[in-house]
Amino acid sequence: MTQKPLPKALFFDVFGSLTDWRTSIAREAERILGTHRKVDWIAFADAWRGEYQPGMERVRAGGRGFVKLDILHRENLERILPKFGLTDLSDETLRELNLAWHRLDCWPDVPGALQRLRKKFLLAPCSNGNIALMADIARKNNLHWDAILGSDVARDFKPKPGVYLAACDAFNLPPAECMMVAAHTRDLVAASQVGLQTGHIARPDEFGPNTGEKGPTAPVDYAGADLADLASRLGC
Amino acid sequence: MTQKPLPKALFFDVFGSLTDWRTSIAREAERILGTHRKVDWIAFADAWRGEYQPGMERVRAGGRGFVKLDILHRENLERILPKFGLTDLSDETLRELNLAWHRLDCWPDVPGALQRLRKKFLLAPCSNGNIALMADIARKNNLHWDAILGSDVARDFKPKPGVYLAACDAFNLPPAECMMVAAHTRDLVAASQVGLQTGHIARPDEFGPNTGEKGPTAPVDYAGADLADLASRLGC
Repeated sequence: MTQKPLPKALFFDVFGSLTDWRTSIAREAERILGTHRKVDWIAFADAWRGEYQPGMERVRAGGRGFVKLDILHRENLERILPKFGLTDLSDETLRELNLAWHRLDCWPDVPGALQRLRKKFLLAPCSNGNIALMADIARKNNLHWDAILGSDVARDFKPKPGVYLAACDAFNLPPAECMMVAAHTRDLVAASQVGLQTGHIARPDEFGPNTGEKGPTAPVDYAGADLADLASRLGC
Repeated sequence: MTQKPLPKALFFDVFGSLTDWRTSIAREAERILGTHRKVDWIAFADAWRGEYQPGMERVRAGGRGFVKLDILHRENLERILPKFGLTDLSDETLRELNLAWHRLDCWPDVPGALQRLRKKFLLAPCSNGNIALMADIARKNNLHWDAILGSDVARDFKPKPGVYLAACDAFNLPPAECMMVAAHTRDLVAASQVGLQTGHIARPDEFGPNTGEKGPTAPVDYAGADLADLASRLGC
């Protein structure tokens, strides 16, 4: 599929690519807010996630200085609460609810596949999530990263080119020796435009059954049915 | 010794506190440059390290933009080479030699003590070393960090207060819930001035037998004979 030499480092998108944010957020919200409330928790998760790109866009466009994703998640949460009739929550509850993103479950193939990949490559998330959020997800899912890269290190959000380049620079590697791995073609196209190799993983159920990308919609260097399959294709 | 609640995160100085840079650099330099050369490799390591603080000082004082420590190490190396008659080295050799800092050995108590501490605390280096350097040392010594914090994240060098505060902020913690751990009282005093708890570990042989701090020379929250002893004092 490719004649390029294998990369030395793999960078990972996390929301959707490694973690099932949708059912995790729905579960956490129901746990924290109580089963007595008549709320469609999956719709709640979708609505919260729906504010994700608009929230980052102002920073990307330069209209606002960089703020970590935890802060955007909190603002986005407060924006959607009235739509679900959730206007009676204490600040403590809101803080707890915002930590739902720190407790995402990985897709089942991820922890084992990362263990295999770690024997051959440097591994780091290159996510728009902040360091604390990534560290908590790693603890919960028993992931061993070499470093946490991404938005907090670059002080900007993907798909801005500087985020991928800051990750390469943090490992002292030229982009051609790094691979971005994601379930979203848009992320991979942006990474490849600044010279990184690309690996697509299918997450067909990201937004519900048969809603996610079943495969890349633009050329990539590698494509796997999931991360375990991609690891095999990379010789791990 | 202290009535403060235990911290949630521990930040570590690395050069001297966790790693024996002096004999590691002497060993690596001799390995790379050859045993046929009549060089006092320990003196070479000391001379290279001797340029460490002056190299960072210009950045700290604002006279130069932030550059990662690998770049300062290379400049410092070129500064000392003539003193040792080493003026015939290729750029490739210089690059390899500069990576000696990526291959430092930990003091023997460190890997086991960090494993114990990890069960109770978030752990991160808060070093002036850059991310790639810290990641390579972690791989070589089998350390599992939650994140790599310090100079590359703060874009400045300790003991500037912003470096400690950026580490706390990366974990979403107030300084009082973080502890700086180091073998150098100066580092701990700077951290405590911005509200972190402090843990001193003795490294009496850092610069050769009986040259390092046998104990803190200013008040600290905890003091251990080494990291294993500090871990015990922290209930691990």
